[in-house]
Amino acid sequence: MTDYTAPLADMRFALTEIAGIGEIATLPGCEQASEDLVDAVLEEAGKLAGGVLAPLNRVGDQQGSVLENGVVRTPDGFKEAYRHYVEGGWNALPFAPEHGGQGLPIAIATAVAEMWNSANMGFALCPLLNIGAVEALTAHGSPEQQRLYLPKLISGEWTGTMNLTEPQAGSDVGALRSRAVRAGDHYRITGQKIFITYGEHDMADNIVHLVLARLPDAPPGTRGISLFVVPKFLVNADGSLGPRNDVRCVSLEHKLGIHASPTCVLAYGDGGGAIGYLVGEENRGMECMFTMMNNARLNVGLQGVAIAERAYQQARDFARQRVQGKPVTATAPGTYPILHHPDVRRMLLLMRTETEAMRALAYCTAGAIDRARHHPDGEVRATQQRRVDLLIPVVKAWCTDLGVEIASLGVQIHGGMGFIEETGAAQHLRDARIAPIYEGTNGIQANDLVGRKLLRDRGAAARELIAEMRAVEAALACRPAEDLVALRRPLATGRDALERATGWMVEQGEADPPRALAGAVPYLKLLGTVAGGWLMAKGALAAEARLEARTGDAGFNAAKLATARFYAEHVLPAAPGLLPGVTGGATIMGFDLERF
Amino acid sequence: MTDYTAPLADMRFALTEIAGIGEIATLPGCEQASEDLVDAVLEEAGKLAGGVLAPLNRVGDQQGSVLENGVVRTPDGFKEAYRHYVEGGWNALPFAPEHGGQGLPIAIATAVAEMWNSANMGFALCPLLNIGAVEALTAHGSPEQQRLYLPKLISGEWTGTMNLTEPQAGSDVGALRSRAVRAGDHYRITGQKIFITYGEHDMADNIVHLVLARLPDAPPGTRGISLFVVPKFLVNADGSLGPRNDVRCVSLEHKLGIHASPTCVLAYGDGGGAIGYLVGEENRGMECMFTMMNNARLNVGLQGVAIAERAYQQARDFARQRVQGKPVTATAPGTYPILHHPDVRRMLLLMRTETEAMRALAYCTAGAIDRARHHPDGEVRATQQRRVDLLIPVVKAWCTDLGVEIASLGVQIHGGMGFIEETGAAQHLRDARIAPIYEGTNGIQANDLVGRKLLRDRGAAARELIAEMRAVEAALACRPAEDLVALRRPLATGRDALERATGWMVEQGEADPPRALAGAVPYLKLLGTVAGGWLMAKGALAAEARLEARTGDAGFNAAKLATARFYAEHVLPAAPGLLPGVTGGATIMGFDLERF
Repeated sequence: MTDYTAPLADMRFALTEIAGIGEIATLPGCEQASEDLVDAVLEEAGKLAGGVLAPLNRVGDQQGSVLENGVVRTPDGFKEAYRHYVEGGWNALPFAPEHGGQGLPIAIATAVAEMWNSANMGFALCPLLNIGAVEALTAHGSPEQQRLYLPKLISGEWTGTMNLTEPQAGSDVGALRSRAVRAGDHYRITGQKIFITYGEHDMADNIVHLVLARLPDAPPGTRGISLFVVPKFLVNADGSLGPRNDVRCVSLEHKLGIHASPTCVLAYGDGGGAIGYLVGEENRGMECMFTMMNNARLNVGLQGVAIAERAYQQARDFARQRVQGKPVTATAPGTYPILHHPDVRRMLLLMRTETEAMRALAYCTAGAIDRARHHPDGEVRATQQRRVDLLIPVVKAWCTDLGVEIASLGVQIHGGMGFIEETGAAQHLRDARIAPIYEGTNGIQANDLVGRKLLRDRGAAARELIAEMRAVEAALACRPAEDLVALRRPLATGRDALERATGWMVEQGEADPPRALAGAVPYLKLLGTVAGGWLMAKGALAAEARLEARTGDAGFNAAKLATARFYAEHVLPAAPGLLPGVTGGATIMGFDLERF
Repeated sequence: MTDYTAPLADMRFALTEIAGIGEIATLPGCEQASEDLVDAVLEEAGKLAGGVLAPLNRVGDQQGSVLENGVVRTPDGFKEAYRHYVEGGWNALPFAPEHGGQGLPIAIATAVAEMWNSANMGFALCPLLNIGAVEALTAHGSPEQQRLYLPKLISGEWTGTMNLTEPQAGSDVGALRSRAVRAGDHYRITGQKIFITYGEHDMADNIVHLVLARLPDAPPGTRGISLFVVPKFLVNADGSLGPRNDVRCVSLEHKLGIHASPTCVLAYGDGGGAIGYLVGEENRGMECMFTMMNNARLNVGLQGVAIAERAYQQARDFARQRVQGKPVTATAPGTYPILHHPDVRRMLLLMRTETEAMRALAYCTAGAIDRARHHPDGEVRATQQRRVDLLIPVVKAWCTDLGVEIASLGVQIHGGMGFIEETGAAQHLRDARIAPIYEGTNGIQANDLVGRKLLRDRGAAARELIAEMRAVEAALACRPAEDLVALRRPLATGRDALERATGWMVEQGEADPPRALAGAVPYLKLLGTVAGGWLMAKGALAAEARLEARTGDAGFNAAKLATARFYAEHVLPAAPGLLPGVTGGATIMGFDLERF
């Protein structure tokens, strides 16, 4: 009932037709990403995800990680599974070969990360946070820091963490108070950090904390924050482990979900000050952190896709087994599983279609990262980077909001059994619920989209995206197949609403920022919904061409046309209705605060 | 942080302007429902809810009910709270005076029940199930059964249960297998029932189970089901308690939420057969059960409203206290609570506005029940009953789906703290999640709406409702106030979509039932969304009239206009976008089942 099988065909389709992995494989540095290699990687990852990680998902939820005498014990089997994962070389997949990485495209790493998160989100959070540490040290670490930490972080023998949050400093990182005092070649760090994912655990030999703190003479706010690397065990010059550093896990949070992932309160410097080493320049820590965030946000968005896929598979399997009631479609006596009931089919198609659309958007963004990094043409790199910057908050927020909705639908399909914890459907909902919150709440993503991404280039990146949507509309107009014709009007109507909303936002964002920001979440939802429709149509065009050319599995391609049409009937038509919410900020800002 | 204050002003407004309690109080049998009495009842109920029940909500979640040696122990304080509740006469509120009830209108009982559910949904489920037992016995019990059971069930000294579900018979009640064998003046019941809410507990002296079972010679399916009353303790002719009956609680479910409410597996007849008494006629048990269901469905819909209100209050209080970041609206230095952030305001307004709309629909339906029961004009009674039949599934499904969404928004406003169980926001989400499932899943509600309510009268009741919407549109057209003008077009557009969807459904429901049922949930959502807009506009008209006449609290009335406008900008515009989903059943029914 709680099995997971990596949706390899769907992933390959999205990589090929949406992310354009074939073209990415022609870019300098990406040449090894041949079709054969992609297939092999996906297949092997699928085995680890389905065979090793997925069976531990429920035990992870039930046992959770436990703190005893300062030591965090992960659930039964996690240590062994992590060793498996490291020994298979999976952690090194996306990282630069200079430090031992495999240097595969982000698009492929994204598909693989989706599997880890579908299989076991509580487990997958450990590698997810590690990526941020690797990226920060790769971009800003000194050569010596890179030599000491990167190889082991990339192999996964050590894991990394991100230490931003303090009780008074959550979304407002600038309010943090942890202190760093110079002490020769290093610094002494004191302070308390909360919500530190895998801040302490028993799966790796060392934990490398990346910690934001303030120097005594630092200016207030975000301009006075510096980034430090603070290893759990100090590292000798030869790479061997030295004494324990002055950082301790003092408690774990009792959370709604992701119980396997230890969410730690870390105390730095109770014994006089943890030894930390400056990363980058003093007072420039926020910039370093932003490096980590973009990728982390893509990966958190991906968690929405991943949980949706897992919830879908479980609900589908249940709907195939559970016999209940005679469906209106029944033509003969006998017993029918609930899959035959029209509304159960509707719910399953909604789960599946939205998952496909989210996957398309996430992989498309990942492909843009690869182009932004590797394309030989500087102008293309710049265009692709604009695309990435625009879409990252959409992937993060749109996919994680839908992830919660889809996990909730999964519970619904189970009926009364869905509310019973033993079934496992409820765990997906509990796990999914964190993703709209961490790594910048979805409200903050929308503010970022409108206040930063849209206004910085006055809508240029958004207009480039809209132009590509128009191109897909034009392609649809040349094809007579009924399933494609049905997509045209909903896409055009949605794109038109997006265009109008974008124009309004660019204008109002400068004229009346509060009013614009009051509409930021509906705008992000509009952009996500229409972008999903654009990519579903793009996929449908490819599927129809395959059908025409009789390549691939005809049933698979027909199903792609069907889900695109379902999206155009059940999801995309919501787009125009979001417009009044985008522009309705005056009602919100005018509401008397005392009347809440 | 987890306080609850009954929203008395909002409740009075909905009772007065939407349910029309003033007019109801003129109906024969409802005369005692004077304004003063309503005020007094609401105020006293609010004290019990806020002062006694709400503080037990978290302990109920943490401890849950526990089964030990066949005895179910409710959480600390529940027994005492229930005694309080019974001694205050609260349980008798809506019931007929013949058997000791207070005979107050259902509209008032609905407002009061909202309070119990906001304060402590796990507690409130006990009285909720009791109502069903009282109604079944009132409608179908013999005079002797009524004499023996009703007074104590109505006072609340005893509680009632509804025993439908068996492992293989959930939504499909007709598949049940529990057996009843005649034995003189009674029957011997054997079988296992699951998901029995408060099937065993320690708060009352006796528990009166209403049990569906099959006679040996009964026809198959729902036409072979009979209803029995099976008391936990047999009742002597003088009303005193006799020996223990042959029914035992063998286990409790481990659930996502409503931990305080014991969800029991009950074994009947392990010692030879529980003694049961036939209610109504043999093989007519389903009809009796339907009597219980209509009211129970209204009350479950109300749970959606209730949890939404509780989640709103908690999120609002948090947003007022939590200081984080400098909002874009800040004009001076200093600290600002997050309530100042535009998107936090948007979320709070969405929670509040949808709660108001749901409350309006639930109270409106309750008022229709009172008219259907008490109006002297038979034609009015019939019209009102049609209205009730049409709206009950909408109240149940629309309000409980929104209840989950709103509780989830409440978590979101708390940020990271929302995911920590100690905060209490997550409990509301976990508790709310059951309501779309039990008492007929929301998919079944939609099937009932389309397949039974809409087709039975070929859309007559729906057209009567639409005519009232048009009347409100006409009233809006006569008023120049900008906040009212802003409501007209969204309401007209939504009503138009509803009208077209209704016409399509009535036609297709006969021509192609599977295709119609595939669009039933979108249709129900469309009806709920537009009905909410209609009642928000009705409320806005009343508030504007009050403002004009300078009656009541001007700030309160202005806020009603603001929430109506917010609804017209953020909720109602979704209505037309649901139409393609209503009519898009062909895509769903055409999808290859093997491809899921």
